[in-house]
Parts: sequence; C-alpha cells; structure tokens
Amino acid sequence: MKQLACSISLTLVLWFSAFLSPAARADEGMWLYSSPPREAIQAKYGVTLTDAWLEHLTKSSVRFNSGGSGSFVSANGLVITNHHVGADDLQKLSDEKHNYLADGFYAATPADEKKCVDLELNALQSTEDVTARVNAGVPSGATGEAAAEARRKVIAEIEKESKEKTGLRSDVVTLYQGGAYHLYRYKRYTDIRLVFAPEQQAAFFGGDPDNFEYPRFDLDICLFRVYENGQPAKIDHFLKWSKNGTSEGELTFVSGHPGGTNRQLTTAELDFLRDTQYPYIVGRLKRVEVLLKNWSDRSAENARRARDDLFGVQNSRKARDGMQAGLYSPALMDPKATQEKAFKTQLGDSVNGTEARAAFDSIAQATQAQAKIYKRHRLLEGGNAFMSDSFYTARTLLRAGDERPKPNGDRLKEFGDARRESLELDLFSDKPIYTDLEILTLSDALTLFAENAGYDDPLVTQVLAGQSPRERAAALINSTKVRDVAFRKQLYNGGATAVTAAKDPMIELARLVDPEARALRKQWEAADETKHQAHATIEKARFALEGPAHAPDATFTLRLSYGPVKGYEEGGHQIPAYTTFAGLYARNAQQKNKEPFDLPRRWLDKKSALKLDTPLNFVSTEDIIGGNSGSPVVNKAGEFVGIIFDGNLASLVLDFAYEDVHARALSVDSRGILEAMRKVYGVDTLANELINGKR
Amino acid sequence: MKQLACSISLTLVLWFSAFLSPAARADEGMWLYSSPPREAIQAKYGVTLTDAWLEHLTKSSVRFNSGGSGSFVSANGLVITNHHVGADDLQKLSDEKHNYLADGFYAATPADEKKCVDLELNALQSTEDVTARVNAGVPSGATGEAAAEARRKVIAEIEKESKEKTGLRSDVVTLYQGGAYHLYRYKRYTDIRLVFAPEQQAAFFGGDPDNFEYPRFDLDICLFRVYENGQPAKIDHFLKWSKNGTSEGELTFVSGHPGGTNRQLTTAELDFLRDTQYPYIVGRLKRVEVLLKNWSDRSAENARRARDDLFGVQNSRKARDGMQAGLYSPALMDPKATQEKAFKTQLGDSVNGTEARAAFDSIAQATQAQAKIYKRHRLLEGGNAFMSDSFYTARTLLRAGDERPKPNGDRLKEFGDARRESLELDLFSDKPIYTDLEILTLSDALTLFAENAGYDDPLVTQVLAGQSPRERAAALINSTKVRDVAFRKQLYNGGATAVTAAKDPMIELARLVDPEARALRKQWEAADETKHQAHATIEKARFALEGPAHAPDATFTLRLSYGPVKGYEEGGHQIPAYTTFAGLYARNAQQKNKEPFDLPRRWLDKKSALKLDTPLNFVSTEDIIGGNSGSPVVNKAGEFVGIIFDGNLASLVLDFAYEDVHARALSVDSRGILEAMRKVYGVDTLANELINGKR
Repeated sequence: MKQLACSISLTLVLWFSAFLSPAARADEGMWLYSSPPREAIQAKYGVTLTDAWLEHLTKSSVRFNSGGSGSFVSANGLVITNHHVGADDLQKLSDEKHNYLADGFYAATPADEKKCVDLELNALQSTEDVTARVNAGVPSGATGEAAAEARRKVIAEIEKESKEKTGLRSDVVTLYQGGAYHLYRYKRYTDIRLVFAPEQQAAFFGGDPDNFEYPRFDLDICLFRVYENGQPAKIDHFLKWSKNGTSEGELTFVSGHPGGTNRQLTTAELDFLRDTQYPYIVGRLKRVEVLLKNWSDRSAENARRARDDLFGVQNSRKARDGMQAGLYSPALMDPKATQEKAFKTQLGDSVNGTEARAAFDSIAQATQAQAKIYKRHRLLEGGNAFMSDSFYTARTLLRAGDERPKPNGDRLKEFGDARRESLELDLFSDKPIYTDLEILTLSDALTLFAENAGYDDPLVTQVLAGQSPRERAAALINSTKVRDVAFRKQLYNGGATAVTAAKDPMIELARLVDPEARALRKQWEAADETKHQAHATIEKARFALEGPAHAPDATFTLRLSYGPVKGYEEGGHQIPAYTTFAGLYARNAQQKNKEPFDLPRRWLDKKSALKLDTPLNFVSTEDIIGGNSGSPVVNKAGEFVGIIFDGNLASLVLDFAYEDVHARALSVDSRGILEAMRKVYGVDTLANELINGKR
Repeated sequence: MKQLACSISLTLVLWFSAFLSPAARADEGMWLYSSPPREAIQAKYGVTLTDAWLEHLTKSSVRFNSGGSGSFVSANGLVITNHHVGADDLQKLSDEKHNYLADGFYAATPADEKKCVDLELNALQSTEDVTARVNAGVPSGATGEAAAEARRKVIAEIEKESKEKTGLRSDVVTLYQGGAYHLYRYKRYTDIRLVFAPEQQAAFFGGDPDNFEYPRFDLDICLFRVYENGQPAKIDHFLKWSKNGTSEGELTFVSGHPGGTNRQLTTAELDFLRDTQYPYIVGRLKRVEVLLKNWSDRSAENARRARDDLFGVQNSRKARDGMQAGLYSPALMDPKATQEKAFKTQLGDSVNGTEARAAFDSIAQATQAQAKIYKRHRLLEGGNAFMSDSFYTARTLLRAGDERPKPNGDRLKEFGDARRESLELDLFSDKPIYTDLEILTLSDALTLFAENAGYDDPLVTQVLAGQSPRERAAALINSTKVRDVAFRKQLYNGGATAVTAAKDPMIELARLVDPEARALRKQWEAADETKHQAHATIEKARFALEGPAHAPDATFTLRLSYGPVKGYEEGGHQIPAYTTFAGLYARNAQQKNKEPFDLPRRWLDKKSALKLDTPLNFVSTEDIIGGNSGSPVVNKAGEFVGIIFDGNLASLVLDFAYEDVHARALSVDSRGILEAMRKVYGVDTLANELINGKR
C-alpha cells in the first residue's frame, strides 16, 4: 500500500457524476480537511466533527517523505507507521552484520535509538487557497509551454514567500487537476530515530503471496521518535491510544496521505492508462522483479541488499496488476463512458457548455501527444533507462549546477528555494549504495532502453559507447565517484564549473542525456498545462450543472476518510471483519512454517503467553489508496484504534471508482499491537508510553 | 538446457566463414552423423571414428518428444536422461497425494514401474538425402506461398511413402535452411515407464539461482524403461557404463538433439531477433514467471501444480537473457557484420555472385515482412493469446475436423499421415489439467492479447465478448468439455460435423480466431520459403568460394559434438573441471541448507557413507545447445562417462557463435551417478543393471 517510487502520474481531475450522486457515493471520498463532509457524517452516523477534533487529527498526522503516512502517539515525539513504510530506513541502517529489516529492532532507552539516514517527516500546520493568485500569474490566453512556465513561476514565488515568512516547508498543490491550487505548510522533522520494529516475518507474514489478501495476520508497524535540537520533540497534538479498539459496525476515520487516484479522468485519459501507461509500467515492474528476485536468490547477502527494493517492486506490481484488471473491466469502465456521453449532452449549447465540450477534445489531444512521447519520457526524464542511485545522484549534481544560479522562478521545480533543504537532505544522505546491485540494475535498464528506443537510435549508440549494456554499466558504476558524499558536497558547492571539471563518467552520461530529457519534460508539462486548463473549464461547467464540490482526487496530501468496520462476502464465503492471533498460528501451521509463512522463533515460543483471541487485523470501508499506509484509524473520540497497512485485492480498483461491497481497507488493531508488544516482545516501557501518552 | 515449449524459430542457415575457418573453428560443430568430422578428429586427437562406432552411438541415442535427449544403457530397454527432461512426465504422474517430481521415485521391480501418460521416444534408424526430390517438387520460378505449398506437398508425400514402406516415423528435415533436405526415420516407443528419479532438490540443487552456473552439484538424472508388447524392449545398441569416467584433458563425444542455433543468420535476421523477437519473448517469459511464481507461493498444492511449468519458464528466461546479452554484444556481433560485408565483396560480379547478393536483400525483405506480423503471429497462431491446455486441445480438435478430410499433401504439416500416431498420443493423453491454473494463465494471456493488439482491435472485442479477461477466462475454462478425453475422442472421430454440433465454447473461440491465425501462418511460411530459397542461393555461392560443407545449424535432430574435459578461467579465478560430493555439502552448508540449496533428509544422513571426493559434475568444450539435455557423453571407446545437463552462462552465446574459452557444457559424471545410487539411494539392482548392461 506504500506509495512507491515508480508512481503513477498524479494528473487527475474530478467530475464523474455517478460516483458523486449521494445514493451511489456511500462513504466515498478522500476529503480535504478544509472542506470535510460534516453534513453527510452527521446525517448518516449522527456524529459531529468539531473544528477542534479536526485540528487535533490534522496536527497528529505526519507524512513520510519515503512515501507513506503516520501519526504522533505520545507527547515525547513517538511516531507510529507501518513496518513497510519504515523499511526504507531499516534497510539503510542495516549492514552486513545487522539486518534490522529482517530481524527487527528495539531501543530500550532513548540513547539506543538509531538516527535515520535521510528520513524527513512533514506535519501539516495550515493550508491556504491560492487559486486566484496562481491563475492571475498566467497571462490570459496563454497556453501550453508558455502557460506552464508562467504558472511554475508564480507557484515558486508563492512557495518561496511562504517559506521565508513562516520558516515552514511550503508546497503549492494542484487540486481538481487545475480547478484549485492550495498552499500547504508543513513543519519538517529531519532528526528521526528508530525506536521499534518487529521482524519482517511478523510484519509481513505471508509475504508477497498474501499481500493485498484478507484474512491477514500482519504486525505491520514500526515506531520512530522525532527529535529537535538533540532532544525528543515535545508534541502538543498526538493520538490517545485506545485499549478497547473497535467493534463491528463502529464508525472509524482514517487520516492520511493517499498518493493518487484516477477516478475523474476522461475516457481519453483512461484509454491512455489502459493502452500505453499500464502495459509499460506493469511490464517493467515484472522485469525488475525477476531481476532482483533471481539475484537475491544467489546469496543471503544479495537478498539483504535488494530486500527493500524487491518488496517495493512486488508490492507495486501486485497493485498495478489489480488496477490494470480494473481498466479491462467493462463493468467498471463502461458506466464511465456512458456518463461522459450523457454529461456532454447535458451541457447544452450555452457558452460554458460549448467550451466544456471543446475542453474534452483538448484533453484527448494533449493525452495523445503525451502517449506519443510516453515511453521515451519515462526512459530519459523518468530515469528508467539508467536505474541506479549513481545515475540519479549524478543527474541531480549536474542539474543543481545548471539550475541553482537561475532566478528561483525559472528553475526546475525540485530546485526551488522552498525545497532546498529537502533536496540537500536527500543528496547528502550517506545511505549505502552497492556497486554489484547498481551494475545489475543499470545493465538491465540500458537493455530496456535499447529495446524500447531501438538499438540504432543515435542516443542509444552514444549511451552504450560501443560496449554491451553489461560492459557499459560495469564501466560507469566502477569509475564514477558520485557515491562519495564528500565528492557530492564538493560538486554541489562548487557549482557547474566544479561539475564540469570533475569529468565524472556518470555525470557526463547525465549531461549527454539531459538536453532531450529536459525537452521531453517541457513537452510533457505543456500537455499537462493544457489538460489543467481544460479540466478547469469542465469543472466550471459541471459546477454550474450539479452544484457544490466533492473530494478531489488524491495528491499525497492530508485527507480524511470514514466508514464502519465491516466484513464482506467473497466467492460465497463471509469474510469476518477481524482476525486474531489464533488465526495467525493456524495459517502458520497450515503452511508448515515455510517461508513466507514462517514465524520468528520468539513468536513460536510465546504462543502460550498470548491471549489468542485478541484482534490482530481488521477491515473497514474507508476510501483509501497507496500512500495511506501507516495512516491512523481513529474512533469518533479521536482515539487511535488501528493503523492502515493495506487494502484487499478488490480495493485496487478504488484508483478508478469507489465501491464498498468487496473493497476493504486493512488495519492492524490497537489491541493486537499492545498484546504483541507486551507478550511477545516484552517492550513494556514502550507499551506504557503508548497507553500513557508520554514516557 | 531443455528445449522448451516456447521455442525460438528454427529458421537457420549457415555460412559465416569466420566461425568456420579451421583456425577459429576449434572443436565447433553439431555434426550430422552422415558427414562426421573424421579428418579433423583424426588430425587433432588421433582418434578414428569407425562406421561401427558411429552406428552404435546413433542407435544408442534417443530423442524425447517432450524436448530433450537420452540414451539406452541396458539391453533391457533402460534409458537415462535428465531429471529436468523427465520432469514433464514426473509432473503428469503426480497427484495431490504423490509428488514424484519433488520427492523422487524408485521402482524396485518391473511391476512397480509407472507408465508415462504421453511420452514418446524416437530412436533414429536411418537418414536419407532427399534434396533433389524436394526441390524437384517445387515448380521452377515459383516463390512465396505457391512454392511453400508445393514444397509442403512433396514433403508430405515423401514422409507418407516412407512411413508406409518402413512403418517408421518419417520426418523430412530442412538443413542449411533450404540448402538440403534429409529424411529421418525413427523407431517410435510409446510405452515408457518410470524407473528411477531422485528428489528435485538433489537433481536441481541450487535451483534457478545456480541454473547455468558452474561449479554445480546436480544429480540431474532420471531413468525410464521402454516397453514393447507389454515387456521391456530388447535393445541391441546400448551404451556400456564406464566405472572409471574421464580424466582432465580427455577427449569426449556428445550424441544428442540440439534444438536450434542461429549462428549463420544474416545481419538482417540477427537484427530481427534483437529488435523484435527477443524483446517480446523475454518480456513474455518474465511476465509468465511472475504469474506462476506468485500463484505457486500461495499454497503448496498450487506450487505442485505449476512446478514443471514454472521451472520451464525460469530456465528459458535465464537462457534467453543470456542470448539477448549476446545480441547486444558488439564483441560478438560486430565481426559478423564485418564478415558479411567482406563476403559480399568477395562474391564478385559472376552470375552466382550477383544472385547471392540479391539473395541477401530478399532475406532482409522477407524478415521485415515477418517482423511486421511477428507479435500477432505469436499471439494467434503461436497461441500466446490463449495460453491454456484447454485452448490448445480445442484448436487441435477444430483443425483435425477441417484437415483430416483433405488429401494428405494439402494438410497443415502436423496433421500429415506420417505424424498421425504422435498427434493422437498427445491429443488423447490423460494428463492432469487444473482448471484454476488454466484460468490463471488464460486470463493473463487474454490481457497480453489486449495489450499487444489494442483493446479496440475487433478480434480482441470478439474474443473478450464484453467481459473482462478474468471473467472471460473463467467462463471459457469452466464451460468447455475438452478436458474430458472421451469427449475429445468423440469429436475427433466424429469429424467436423461432430465438432460443430458440440458448440463447445472453447472450440468456438478457436474457430473465431482460426481464419486470421491460418492467414498469418501462410504469410509466415511464405516468407520462410523466400528465405529458404535465398539461403540456398547464398549457400551455393559460398560453396563455390570456400569449398566443402560444415555442420548445419541445429534442428532438434541427432548430432555429434566433441571436445576435451577442461576447466576454465572466470573473473581471474580458475574453475576446475570437476566438482565432487564434498563440494555439494560445502555449498549446502554455506547456504545454511536454505531452499533452493537444501538437501533431502537422506542426503544429509548418508554423507558419511559417501566417498566424498567422487566426481559429481564436470565440464567439457563440446558444442551444445538447448535440446542436448540428457545427451550421453562417451569416451573414444563409446562408453558412457557422463550425461549433459546444462551449459554455463557463457555458453548461452553458442546460439550465435561457438567459443571454447569460457563456454562449457556441464555433465553429471558416470562415477557420481553410481556412487549416489548405491550409497544414498541404495538402488543396487539398478546400479548393477547399468554396470552389467542388463537386468
């Protein structure tokens, strides 16, 4: 459920009315905290959301820059998220002697807590509607590249101004695909320390085969502590831990950062996903999965090195497979086409209506333009052709040299002043990079490039430089110095002159590719701008017809979802809402303790100590998607009753449309967490901190 | 190393001179028994191949219709091959209670031997050059479709005539890609019984990670017995077992059925492989590997059902990855282009020379025509769009109804009279087919079809019939009756009328697809015919320039290779020629007995009983390729000293060019086999039969 690196384009827009009419809507919606569905919740559940309740939940929620969600759970900076969200950090803290990702970790005292290499947490402090100012920055009548540039400039200006005024991380977010622009201000935490992680076998029991399945039995949690000035941060807003959890049918809320949805795309955009984007992405994921899996199987150390990457790829592949099935499902897609047609008719011949119909056409044209450059854009600008940390680092150094001297508003977005600190945290990270794994992925990526662009493509010829992909990859990885942090700092601080003087082969490769990569990005963003403007036009017409707004598609910003704890039917079987420790041991026995259904020794030993009917996982109907991993689930009192860690297979189509018949959000139960902490891990100090809300 | 179902096109031709000049040639060549390299062997090794020696080795060799090689090793019909060649039969003999593929098998008495479901062995009895007659059957000046049809007709005539005259299976084989046509006559054995198989863990120790690697430690053997009239067949030509094996540097011979090589393609054909065929094949293999692997991981019974298929896909994927790397290697490919250019110049302006140069152009054109229809041909005629035994069976029934009433020469090749028995053995096989696995593969295949042909393709629309790929696959698999053998017999015997009357949904799907599938096949074969003729022209010109012939590319017919037992250097390390049982236990300990490096219990128990320095596997320089799996390795006395089971990674480029610096053939040693049989398995009766050459 984690939002993954190879993320889908977040170019989304809203409008399909069928999924928005009150009857069909059910508990649909990843709601903005600035416009929560108070009336619907009041009407259906008799629960009133107060401003204080909303503010408390907002400020208790955190975002992981590695792609997930979490929440504060004590006044002393304790943060809980999923094990698979923390996996990136567990991996980076490990070495040949210590495999915290596989074996788990516990810091008995604050002094034992381990500082993460490059983790950044963001806690939302405020949002502001800046739509008018953003639109005013774009000259009337401007389109495509010129409009995209103007918009980028005004956004950079707003972000920089906000950052300078408040000191907070300031991001302008495009909502409703151009219908609105909101400024999000976050407190950044960058001194994050690892407190507790169970073994991956317990967190991810059932592994890839049981991923996205239910019933499940996963203790998918990981705890960190945020520090300020070398001390555990003092946190005002944190969630009170519920010892009593939930009961079936009880209303719950999820506060997290769904990464992206595609519910409100036009049929032209859905066709593009189905015919162009998904075949490429899913094919590439399977390719990389086979590559990493087979390399991992060669030795235990290989497996350790590739572990987090492999998990990410498998997780993403399974999710995309499910989404792709949605795109090929007439039951899901045909109504969307029907509704689009009906809506176009409904628009009538008013000026708004005519403009809106024309907007559908410009979306189709812009999408076709993107389809034409899609693969090459992914390969070059997306970096798929050079998959390796060494290349990504080299390119950042190259571009930093070129971009940083420019005025703030003229730079590529990621080099804007407002993002400088996050960029540097990442660039100067001392995370381990393994040359053997780098050569493996880079040679496969170069082969992918040659396959897709054609072996005789001039850029392919220049990139391969007369060598085979394997020889070229080995030569590049073995000779580049970008894996040395001191070298990176020197080049970053020395600017373009230092970068050029270094003559580093990987940076020179990035330089070779950069003109076309940048050109493709420009074309891509110009088409996006065209779509933004067109979606804004459609949006306006739709509002005129149908009235007030609903939740925009997800954008990896904080959202609120709601729905009851509820079992479901599958293939004639009733799937109960809760699983227990007893179920975990039964599944383990049924699979004969064989990987990935094996349990750590201590779990086998402590079975008799556990209250076996304690709930471990549960399902509810909240509207969630990748990125929601680690989101707290709270009851109407705002107490922590569980933590989202997955959706079931049926939930994968939530990317395109909400349903609550078979789709479910999966959570770890607050009761199961406590029971395991006390009985299996014996970490009573930590359990007490959760219960008491302080150390 | 097994020749796999998803086989590459065997459209091969010879000529590249660099690999044929005596200096570069070394021990290159998969030689026809009708023209063995007596002089070269005499000159280099001082060994004389007598007619009797050659006849004995020929008649001791057998071909497995499931795609591999083997040999007779006792007068009582005992045949030895690889475990992975027998895997298909072990899988088909297994059920939910007995997993012979995983757990092994031993029949203490002939009464315990288990009859295979649909295994056919072919033992070559004679060959005959029929080039003149085949070419005479094609009207002078005929090209493309007309020529292909005429050639098919005369070939069917020759095969039928030979079958009727001799009672033997009679296949006309295209050699030198049209340079020659030979008639092969085989004795068919169809009552084959399983005698002995070790556990897959012992046979395939190291699994996919160690596949194509060396040093290796695999007891990759499986023994069958051929029966005639309910009794073990009396065999005149079988190999005497060597208790002494080989020593380093000793000359050895391999007699087996290499499936196909691509050494002598023109650059236009190599470009097609690199740019069109390999990206598609390798991509599809990885896709299917992920599909089967993840389904297998869901439960032990799933794993059992998919085991042989998954092995086949992984094996093939690893092989193709290595071959693809060869295609992208300038060191390997640039000389080929240079030589083609030089040859064209050398041809001069004679009539022959001008014709030969034009022939290169027609090969390029025909190849481009094939590239245009390649994917659709694979999807429809190759069946990739409908991957399931149910579909393949349904199509055979449909086509049998249409083809069998036609005159023999007008039928699709596989329905020719000479092939009837083999076709019926396969069609009426009672092998297990699992509906869940069928639905899994078919739904993925339908998705592949939609991805490649486009969702809006009219045939895709008709095939999916308004359902999603998953729904459609489930509906088809659950409603078809073709998995019932009695139903198949009824339709086959009832002919087209019965097939139509049955209204079976899967057969109707095959019918829907058949017109286009047949049309694509016609186009494909017409292009092949053009290439055959062009290659024959080039061949003629080359002979005029360079003199006598050399071995043609492999065609899954019996060939002789030779070379010494010899270690090699890799990355600065000297890899010894032999491995031992001691090495097996060391690798097992190093990998902590973890899958796929775990050993069966009895191997762990019997360690102390084994003479640990007994050779287990060895490497030699023979020129082999997929299909050679299970080939006997003999010494100059014609004694069985080992059995081919794999090549190392470097050997994968043998598809395109021979080399003996790093490329090696891998064999199980005759001494290791005996030692394991006696000490680990305690099957002394069987070991004695090998030593005595009779029961």
